[in-house]
Amino acid sequence: MANSGRNRVVIENITPQVDGGLYPAKRTVGETVEVSADIFADGHDYIRSRIVYKAPGKRTLQYVELKSGTNDKWHSSFITDRTGQWSFYIEAWIDHFYTWYQGFLKKAEAGQHLALELLEGADYLGRIVDSAEARDKETIQHCLMLFGDKQKYEQAFTAVLSDSMVQIVEKYPLVENPTRSTEYSVVCEFEKAGFSTWYEFFPRSASTEKGRHGTFRDCERMLPKIAEMGFDVLYFPPIHPIGEVNRKGKNNSVTAEKDEPGSPWAIGSRHGGHKSIHPELGTLEDYRRLVKKARQLGIDIALDIAFQCAPDHPYVKEHPEWFRWRPDGTVQYAENPPKKYQDILPLNFEGDDWKNLWEELLSVVVYWIEQGITIFRVDNPHTKPIGFWQWLIAEVNKKYENIIFLSEAFTRPRVMESLAKVGFTHGYTYFTWRVAKHEIIEYMTELVYGNSRNYFRPNFWPNTPDILPYHLQRDGENIFVIRYALAATLSSNYGMYGPVYEHYEQRPVEGKEEYLNSEKYEIKYYNWDVENRLTRVIRTVNKARKENAALQSTWNISFCYIENNNLIAYLKITNDRSSIILTVVNLDPYSRQHGFVQIRKEELGITEGINLHLTDLITGNEYQWTEEWNYVELDPNSMPFHLFRIEVRESNL
Amino acid sequence: MANSGRNRVVIENITPQVDGGLYPAKRTVGETVEVSADIFADGHDYIRSRIVYKAPGKRTLQYVELKSGTNDKWHSSFITDRTGQWSFYIEAWIDHFYTWYQGFLKKAEAGQHLALELLEGADYLGRIVDSAEARDKETIQHCLMLFGDKQKYEQAFTAVLSDSMVQIVEKYPLVENPTRSTEYSVVCEFEKAGFSTWYEFFPRSASTEKGRHGTFRDCERMLPKIAEMGFDVLYFPPIHPIGEVNRKGKNNSVTAEKDEPGSPWAIGSRHGGHKSIHPELGTLEDYRRLVKKARQLGIDIALDIAFQCAPDHPYVKEHPEWFRWRPDGTVQYAENPPKKYQDILPLNFEGDDWKNLWEELLSVVVYWIEQGITIFRVDNPHTKPIGFWQWLIAEVNKKYENIIFLSEAFTRPRVMESLAKVGFTHGYTYFTWRVAKHEIIEYMTELVYGNSRNYFRPNFWPNTPDILPYHLQRDGENIFVIRYALAATLSSNYGMYGPVYEHYEQRPVEGKEEYLNSEKYEIKYYNWDVENRLTRVIRTVNKARKENAALQSTWNISFCYIENNNLIAYLKITNDRSSIILTVVNLDPYSRQHGFVQIRKEELGITEGINLHLTDLITGNEYQWTEEWNYVELDPNSMPFHLFRIEVRESNL
Repeated sequence: MANSGRNRVVIENITPQVDGGLYPAKRTVGETVEVSADIFADGHDYIRSRIVYKAPGKRTLQYVELKSGTNDKWHSSFITDRTGQWSFYIEAWIDHFYTWYQGFLKKAEAGQHLALELLEGADYLGRIVDSAEARDKETIQHCLMLFGDKQKYEQAFTAVLSDSMVQIVEKYPLVENPTRSTEYSVVCEFEKAGFSTWYEFFPRSASTEKGRHGTFRDCERMLPKIAEMGFDVLYFPPIHPIGEVNRKGKNNSVTAEKDEPGSPWAIGSRHGGHKSIHPELGTLEDYRRLVKKARQLGIDIALDIAFQCAPDHPYVKEHPEWFRWRPDGTVQYAENPPKKYQDILPLNFEGDDWKNLWEELLSVVVYWIEQGITIFRVDNPHTKPIGFWQWLIAEVNKKYENIIFLSEAFTRPRVMESLAKVGFTHGYTYFTWRVAKHEIIEYMTELVYGNSRNYFRPNFWPNTPDILPYHLQRDGENIFVIRYALAATLSSNYGMYGPVYEHYEQRPVEGKEEYLNSEKYEIKYYNWDVENRLTRVIRTVNKARKENAALQSTWNISFCYIENNNLIAYLKITNDRSSIILTVVNLDPYSRQHGFVQIRKEELGITEGINLHLTDLITGNEYQWTEEWNYVELDPNSMPFHLFRIEVRESNL
Repeated sequence: MANSGRNRVVIENITPQVDGGLYPAKRTVGETVEVSADIFADGHDYIRSRIVYKAPGKRTLQYVELKSGTNDKWHSSFITDRTGQWSFYIEAWIDHFYTWYQGFLKKAEAGQHLALELLEGADYLGRIVDSAEARDKETIQHCLMLFGDKQKYEQAFTAVLSDSMVQIVEKYPLVENPTRSTEYSVVCEFEKAGFSTWYEFFPRSASTEKGRHGTFRDCERMLPKIAEMGFDVLYFPPIHPIGEVNRKGKNNSVTAEKDEPGSPWAIGSRHGGHKSIHPELGTLEDYRRLVKKARQLGIDIALDIAFQCAPDHPYVKEHPEWFRWRPDGTVQYAENPPKKYQDILPLNFEGDDWKNLWEELLSVVVYWIEQGITIFRVDNPHTKPIGFWQWLIAEVNKKYENIIFLSEAFTRPRVMESLAKVGFTHGYTYFTWRVAKHEIIEYMTELVYGNSRNYFRPNFWPNTPDILPYHLQRDGENIFVIRYALAATLSSNYGMYGPVYEHYEQRPVEGKEEYLNSEKYEIKYYNWDVENRLTRVIRTVNKARKENAALQSTWNISFCYIENNNLIAYLKITNDRSSIILTVVNLDPYSRQHGFVQIRKEELGITEGINLHLTDLITGNEYQWTEEWNYVELDPNSMPFHLFRIEVRESNL
């Protein structure tokens, strides 16, 4: 408990920490690490404490003092201004110098004679004088002279009560027998880990000529438009050779017609496996060229990592020990009894050769990093061992910087969280199904104010190739705008699966949250030049996200009271209040809704009267608000949300 | 994270644990350790898990399987049936046998042909057969024969679906690649740690002749009455020589008159220190005799440990290094600026000789244990280092069994909790100031359902020599009965400072929560034979506590709805429901109050209609309740509370 018998201070319950320090907390560059702890000791002496922290790759320690709040809770913070592994611990001690000083003030106020106290003070000053800066050293030496001279009692007394003594006491803690806490880690990642805008499409559907398989060259032609729409991550489903054995047909039918393309997630054929490229998409050279061109436009191409095999994947022959074999000599396919998935063979992570399997899978990721890929969207990570991911991501991070792993963990909460703890940069979330106002507020509150804030970075998607949620099936065009606006303004990381989304595709497999005629099993031909209300909204919102720092964090949200359950309103404010965004969304896709939204002065740092200038970044309309409660009205058929940039102006009051 | 690459299961968030296992959880003999954890893995395979626990001093491990609840939370429990340090950890694994079995059931229901599955099942059975008991081994071997014979498909199929297969699957988990959690400790203490009834008085006031100093012999004469009142711990303020230098006078005046006795907490004089006895109380022999006689009546004498010194304590001369010396050559007395406590010298735990100081203080405790003392009430533990107590209590527990330390930590919550974590058996609490219904419910909920339940055992006191709370100063006799009843029925450990309490002493130092003419500074002469309403209540309640197991635990409380804010009602029920007590208290000392109290069937395990027989253990009145909501009425002037023993009878419905 104590480092030595003389350490009187106890330090407990330190935040941020994840599972008692088993995993690091996460931040992105420039974010603040708010540190708190319960710090207390026996008796009534004064405690002082400080965060001792270290930047990645630095040897020097930095210090920042904690301040005590109610119930022995102490607080302070530091800023992570570079990527890498930061560490911190807390040091706390009884500060006898500070205790003496505070006691002196109280006794002086009570009119006591303090000659003995001055001699004691001289002793404390003597212990700090050597560490003082030149100027302070002078002051201290002057005090030492006065305190030791009985004739100068009055002067000495006055010196203790002077401002310069306050400064010396504050500046020079007397650190004796400090208690030192456990050390905790904070991993700081690069900006894109905290702020990114994803667009997903199937490259095979990128052809503009009907009947021709889309190629990377087709994709290349689309890049300027995608950049102009404001996306900075372009994510493709797997680009590897698609299995030819047990290939699935249209609408997931068990057998494919001869010319059906199959699901890109059934990986591997005579053309190769996870390090190969599906021949009809182009060559490795084409892909590398696409990745390079995209980067020139500020777009990273994300690769889909789906660690599973089609029955004709080369691994099956080359590494039979990586699969489970049945008594009849066949490989065990995926199943969820009584359902069978004969086109997919899971890898057996429990086999004797698991170490080589791990190494091979790592080599897949490394291979693509070497081709220029920095972002990986990991398919179904929750069906591979969590410990495997922890190892793989750590190994990658040892060799490479600024790699993003997005976890497609549409699974149970504890598993979703665990994958985030072990290293995934982003995670898909339940946002896709949080529709009602209270659901959205509860979920954001859990994500932002719960402890998962320290390790789980949400990435909000209104749809995916696997999920066409019920509300998108029935509520027409407006709901597509609403769900898009929510995703892009609630979360700094969001993505969408297009072009079906912009095209308002809403036809499901009956009774299911799945697309009818899903692109997973067939090639589509889109009119890629469609412009509509949603494409204009996307362009405008993405521009607003780039220009307004408040929209570049998920953690700065606070919900506003608004007296209408169909309207949801939230403020996002940067720490320095230089960027303030108020979003108001009408969740009702059918009817005009109105209500009064509350803007709390304290939140905007306003002490005088309210005088706000609002610009709706969608419509360009401007407003002046001078009251705490303000009227808003939203007609979903014209525009279901406001995206206000707020400027706080000097009050006329 | 994982013990090996093949461990797929994650175990997190285990309870009970205190600060991640830094401190043991506490139980008393016979209490249940309810264990829970988040347990999950990748994929859809079935997990099984078990608590692996070890009784104190035993080598053999015991196992109990956990069952899964919602959101990957698993639960089970074990009973601590002997004192000492228990340990447990959790083991969890993917059970492929169980997964196979569940899959078989689902596939069979879907009408699939399962010949391959039978061969796989034979493989699993082959792996468990060696560990099976003789009878089960036969069943398994029979199955092995069937499963391997194509001609016996139908019989084999039927065998899998049979009851005996369920039993085998449940009984023989196939433990492969288990994940093992951290090991946690549970300290199990003897019964009195969980259930005790304290009475405090000043032995110097035990004289029945006015003008004579009370003695241990006087105390001895009182033992039968104290036992008959139902108390089993008799606690005396310090019995050591009282300092003669700077002795305090009546009402804490700075100077004592010549014949004033001083405060027993100013310990040490020319007559000795912490290992000596105040001469006027008697001899060590007298004390030992008193302790022995008390024990014969089921009473333990508790010793007050107050580690501080009067200015004339022998330590000051013998060990000047244990004190802080001021520049004028005097010892630093206790102070809380600007207040000074010149009669008390604190020990300096930060001095160079701290190790010898610790050893000496330990020797004080050991000395009194050797004289027969097993219970220590520790004065102001929060003014000595927490790490010191952790060491001292651990050292004592290494050599002696069944020692109780009651912490008088009337201080801030984190410090109070910390002392409990490091080993104090009981703690004084804020009950003394929790008066309103919502305050009592909130506080009990925090104590019983918060994590401190695992380390902090409350001891409820309505008053102490230091505290005459405001409500006892103004509300007359009834409030003394009310506060007594609450203390004795809410908490299984409680105490009271008498005889002022039974005598309804309510005169304070003006404006303070302190007794006027406090016994701390003067000798009192009481009529020890007074009988009144409260003494009868004490006798009856203590008898009820002894006879009704439900009142012997603090952890089994649940509050009942009662539609009157002046009435509070709570059930206490043993695990086996053999003892059920309903207490209803009128918190209003002035007026008759009535209301309907709800008795929830489920809580009493009633599935049919309600038919309860109630006996009020205070009045002897009997009642029959057949409804969920029942009328109660309490006149504080006759009796402000009901203490109902409830018998659940067969319903007539």
